[in-house]
Amino acid sequence: MTANRTEEIDLRSDNGAPVAPEIMAAIERANHGSAASYGDDAISGRLTAAFRELFETDLIVLPVISGTAANALAISQITPTYGAVFCHEHAHMNTDECGAPEFFSGGAKLVPVPGEHAKLDPDALTERIQMNAEVGVHQSESASLSVSQSTEFGSVYLPDELRRISGIAKDSSLRMHMDGARLGNAIDRLRCTPAETTWRAGVDVLSFGATKNGALAAEAIIVFDRELAEGLERRRKRAGHLISKMRFVSAQLEAYIADGLWLELAGRANRSADALAVGLQKVPGVTLAHPAEANEIFLSMSNQLAEGLEKSGIRFFPWPGERDVYRFVTSYCTSSEEIERVLECAERIGREAH
Amino acid sequence: MTANRTEEIDLRSDNGAPVAPEIMAAIERANHGSAASYGDDAISGRLTAAFRELFETDLIVLPVISGTAANALAISQITPTYGAVFCHEHAHMNTDECGAPEFFSGGAKLVPVPGEHAKLDPDALTERIQMNAEVGVHQSESASLSVSQSTEFGSVYLPDELRRISGIAKDSSLRMHMDGARLGNAIDRLRCTPAETTWRAGVDVLSFGATKNGALAAEAIIVFDRELAEGLERRRKRAGHLISKMRFVSAQLEAYIADGLWLELAGRANRSADALAVGLQKVPGVTLAHPAEANEIFLSMSNQLAEGLEKSGIRFFPWPGERDVYRFVTSYCTSSEEIERVLECAERIGREAH
Amino acid sequence: MTANRTEEIDLRSDNGAPVAPEIMAAIERANHGSAASYGDDAISGRLTAAFRELFETDLIVLPVISGTAANALAISQITPTYGAVFCHEHAHMNTDECGAPEFFSGGAKLVPVPGEHAKLDPDALTERIQMNAEVGVHQSESASLSVSQSTEFGSVYLPDELRRISGIAKDSSLRMHMDGARLGNAIDRLRCTPAETTWRAGVDVLSFGATKNGALAAEAIIVFDRELAEGLERRRKRAGHLISKMRFVSAQLEAYIADGLWLELAGRANRSADALAVGLQKVPGVTLAHPAEANEIFLSMSNQLAEGLEKSGIRFFPWPGERDVYRFVTSYCTSSEEIERVLECAERIGREAH
Amino acid sequence: MTANRTEEIDLRSDNGAPVAPEIMAAIERANHGSAASYGDDAISGRLTAAFRELFETDLIVLPVISGTAANALAISQITPTYGAVFCHEHAHMNTDECGAPEFFSGGAKLVPVPGEHAKLDPDALTERIQMNAEVGVHQSESASLSVSQSTEFGSVYLPDELRRISGIAKDSSLRMHMDGARLGNAIDRLRCTPAETTWRAGVDVLSFGATKNGALAAEAIIVFDRELAEGLERRRKRAGHLISKMRFVSAQLEAYIADGLWLELAGRANRSADALAVGLQKVPGVTLAHPAEANEIFLSMSNQLAEGLEKSGIRFFPWPGERDVYRFVTSYCTSSEEIERVLECAERIGREAH
Repeated sequence: MTANRTEEIDLRSDNGAPVAPEIMAAIERANHGSAASYGDDAISGRLTAAFRELFETDLIVLPVISGTAANALAISQITPTYGAVFCHEHAHMNTDECGAPEFFSGGAKLVPVPGEHAKLDPDALTERIQMNAEVGVHQSESASLSVSQSTEFGSVYLPDELRRISGIAKDSSLRMHMDGARLGNAIDRLRCTPAETTWRAGVDVLSFGATKNGALAAEAIIVFDRELAEGLERRRKRAGHLISKMRFVSAQLEAYIADGLWLELAGRANRSADALAVGLQKVPGVTLAHPAEANEIFLSMSNQLAEGLEKSGIRFFPWPGERDVYRFVTSYCTSSEEIERVLECAERIGREAH
Repeated sequence: MTANRTEEIDLRSDNGAPVAPEIMAAIERANHGSAASYGDDAISGRLTAAFRELFETDLIVLPVISGTAANALAISQITPTYGAVFCHEHAHMNTDECGAPEFFSGGAKLVPVPGEHAKLDPDALTERIQMNAEVGVHQSESASLSVSQSTEFGSVYLPDELRRISGIAKDSSLRMHMDGARLGNAIDRLRCTPAETTWRAGVDVLSFGATKNGALAAEAIIVFDRELAEGLERRRKRAGHLISKMRFVSAQLEAYIADGLWLELAGRANRSADALAVGLQKVPGVTLAHPAEANEIFLSMSNQLAEGLEKSGIRFFPWPGERDVYRFVTSYCTSSEEIERVLECAERIGREAH
Repeated sequence: MTANRTEEIDLRSDNGAPVAPEIMAAIERANHGSAASYGDDAISGRLTAAFRELFETDLIVLPVISGTAANALAISQITPTYGAVFCHEHAHMNTDECGAPEFFSGGAKLVPVPGEHAKLDPDALTERIQMNAEVGVHQSESASLSVSQSTEFGSVYLPDELRRISGIAKDSSLRMHMDGARLGNAIDRLRCTPAETTWRAGVDVLSFGATKNGALAAEAIIVFDRELAEGLERRRKRAGHLISKMRFVSAQLEAYIADGLWLELAGRANRSADALAVGLQKVPGVTLAHPAEANEIFLSMSNQLAEGLEKSGIRFFPWPGERDVYRFVTSYCTSSEEIERVLECAERIGREAH
Repeated sequence: MTANRTEEIDLRSDNGAPVAPEIMAAIERANHGSAASYGDDAISGRLTAAFRELFETDLIVLPVISGTAANALAISQITPTYGAVFCHEHAHMNTDECGAPEFFSGGAKLVPVPGEHAKLDPDALTERIQMNAEVGVHQSESASLSVSQSTEFGSVYLPDELRRISGIAKDSSLRMHMDGARLGNAIDRLRCTPAETTWRAGVDVLSFGATKNGALAAEAIIVFDRELAEGLERRRKRAGHLISKMRFVSAQLEAYIADGLWLELAGRANRSADALAVGLQKVPGVTLAHPAEANEIFLSMSNQLAEGLEKSGIRFFPWPGERDVYRFVTSYCTSSEEIERVLECAERIGREAH
């Protein structure tokens, strides 16, 4: 192995990765001649059929360029301005989107629900929904629910877990949204079809992420119930998310789902995460803060070890609000050499500390 | 005592009480001849001076007709659309205003903070503010803080407690709002001046409540820092809260603070609450869920006792989300006969149960 | 006649008038004993039946305390955030509500339409609707239409005129709102039933005004199609317009429509306006800027005459944006002595000028 | 000339053009290795200095991916929710952004102002500002003004014209925004510096467009007054416009302004437009509806000619709301062969018609 030891290894986020070659090639292919703007081009025209095939059902697909836009637009479709959205207290939309769901919905209320490893606890969820109902007109109307698959803490809902959540949602007539910014990683882990962990599990609207998994800037809002898509195109337009040269966003999504590329990329990230999680847990004092089921690993470790890794050029993310917890994220292009080097460093620092 | 035993006793809310005679008389006095509309009348013109005298400082006062309007308008003045408001998780604005602060602010984020008896816990508050800061642009900007005096659970912040909270606010450049829907009850308890528990304790904007304490429909937004009032008049107008015949709202407020009427009324409610709290705690199995420091009493009691009281025509409020906890609220016109009858009933049912 | 010549005569607005005795009496009657809050009281409970009888149809009624609130809440019910509202360029909601419809709807677009005397011109309306349709997703969706009856300039839509407008609305699937802040004045003039000029003429949601015609602060949102009322109660709550002591608002409305009081009051205002309009037109140089069909009179007159009237203690309103046009508004309590005095003054000043 | 006569010529919009080779190359160069996300990368870090050099002044620059986002974010920075924005009635933000300014600002009011050729008429503007002032708190506060350079109808403000507008703005304390979606085309025409027609002419916030002139999806919000940028980053984030892989947007902008590329591209488009405008006006019955000063040409022509051109494979855009007016837009890659072919077609059809 001749990896350059002085180069940084960036495990802060999968957002830091470059565009996958297949997707960049698609952008370049799209760049010939003139095309109708605002989504009336040929590539955009092919997207619906491609996503229908992927999800094995009728659906509406609208490309946007960020996960926050996808989430917030989706939530605003299924939550009136006077509505409440139940979501995990650590859901990305509650902690990292600067109030985007509140903004897009015109002031709907996110009701944070607890649960281990960023998965909604069904009992806590039921309790919050019941409490909301008791308050009547004095509190926002229970309207929708959002789950993340995989979750903000790198865990993955099992089919039974998801069905239990969606059962609660349906019992209270809540529409269900899934934040699938890292859906590919979850599906790779579950070895299920995209349908199984989305609409067949009760999801009405999906934020289908590609950017964290190799795209340049491309996400898709996927609406499984046509009636829920009414007005969505205008919402996207007035939020500034109807890209004029849409062909370049659509081209990314088309390449992303063609021939299983997205699952191939997600699988690579997951394999790297697995190797990293297994290896790091062997270092004394290092434990998983959450199950490492996708491409995010949350580790409890000593300040000493964290500093040592940083000094060795390994970049990762101290988790806000939790002392001694650090997040490592692998991407489709994290190499086995990089993983090896991280493990070597950690082992060395661990040895020196004892 | 010859009280009519078949009449209901209504302790569900101080909102159920009629208008105090002094205030109704003021409305009637205002109803002669024509007057300029939208607050350009003589009574409205006298309000500022009257409130300045009451609070011993320069201020801006804007009458509105509901506490929700006062709170939401106040919050929208000190919280940008991309801002965060720290408030108690059981604050009225978080649990009972149907998302009004979110609506008026254009989607600001209420960050719920825990604390015993609906008082903000200073450590928990500090922690939440710090965590918010760490997330940077990905989370709403820490902008403001709201306390309720008295609180949603009938407790009252002591001067030191309030100073500690406002110290934290100032350290983080948060503007401070006080929900004073029941401010009179707190001041009666504290035996302090209105200034001491408001602007001298760090409050920038106050919702000064009168409706729960004898008015027909009158609250005042009081801004202690003139710069913070910029645009507030237009916010009120566009929310439909600039009443055309404003003289009738102003007349209520003028009478309410004249000659200490408001504290007289609040004192009566507090005395009734005291008698009720002392008496009910003597009934076996009845305990206070929260300190009874204003005119709201939260009691843990058996279902059997609760049902017995209900059957005896005593009306009170089962608290949402808390099993076996009931709220009793006294008002300025709760009579000692009513209190006696409640206590007799409770003792009787208590005896029968044992 | 011994009227005190030194007293002011206030014709600036019908908002300046005091509360009608019958309505004040109803408020006083409501002020006995405790009552359930937030509209669960007995008086509020009777409102629906009373309004159904008045309008001869099923409907939903929600009391609020300002016309701006009624209009903005109504518009937000029938216009999505991405929708367009067609209204007259001089409609109160476009010129005098400080963006309330935009605020309540979350940013819907008011599309101003021209037309003589503040009545929508059908051809101009059709043209604007067609143009909006051509732009597709790049412009707000044509969603609703608002007419004022009587209009901002004191004119009244005839039945045929209203039907033509509502026909255009229905052809384009627009929901129709009527701003009835001065509906009584229009109905008095038209000698029609309330049904005829509202739902039978195509109106879906009505702002039914009482404040300008003798109430203290009371307006009703009337929804003729139950499905259009979904969520309206929560919208009212979160806007701070669910008054806790609702009985006092409901009592005003109940008295207002009982025994035809509202039409009696409106008739008085209209008679005064008629006398004023007829008399003032006899003064050389004075002409009607708009047909005087309700209780508002818009006059073109010389600056000299306007100043003379002002000096004589007669108060009226120079219309913004139109040179030499002045608005005079009569109310239910404008007296014949007041009208006589205005006419005498005007004639005198007119004589002196020539 | 051997141009393929069967190919379509697309003059519907400059949005239809592909990405300029220099800009695509920059995207590809940015695609190596990992980079910090959300704008913390090296390329984004260089943007500010590059734009400061271009505009010869201190400024803040925030990249976004659509002109609608740039405009609406800019307007929301300088217009409170209760504010009014004066803009031309045919401004893009008023006619083609589906209410985005209203949405982003939380319901501010766009006040349409007339003026020939989509340029604000100074007298009409003054009048509207004065009228707004008279209404006081009953109308949205005059807060900002927006001009487009070049305008929606392809005209260009001369320096004196712009100074007159900005003088009016400053006199009324209005902040001034410029929609520069086609700023390059205007500057090429004016032969001025970027500073001269922006901040030196009174512009506070600029939407600096690149997408219509060769970028893939890249616009920059440029704030010339640092104080006006407060909170802008969070507004961008919560609107879903903080792109995670920002380096790819920044790379476009960097290449766009490097070595005058943007003016080179704009110049090409303008030259094509000039040739087209001169040539088409020679066809009998064809007249310019507006001065052709940038890269948009608005022509009045017969239906017969329009249909003939369409049949010949020439694509252009019938202007909504104006009979017999058609828009032709050239881009940086419109070829002289294409222009020639259009002119030949038009001349032939013109001859045949006579």
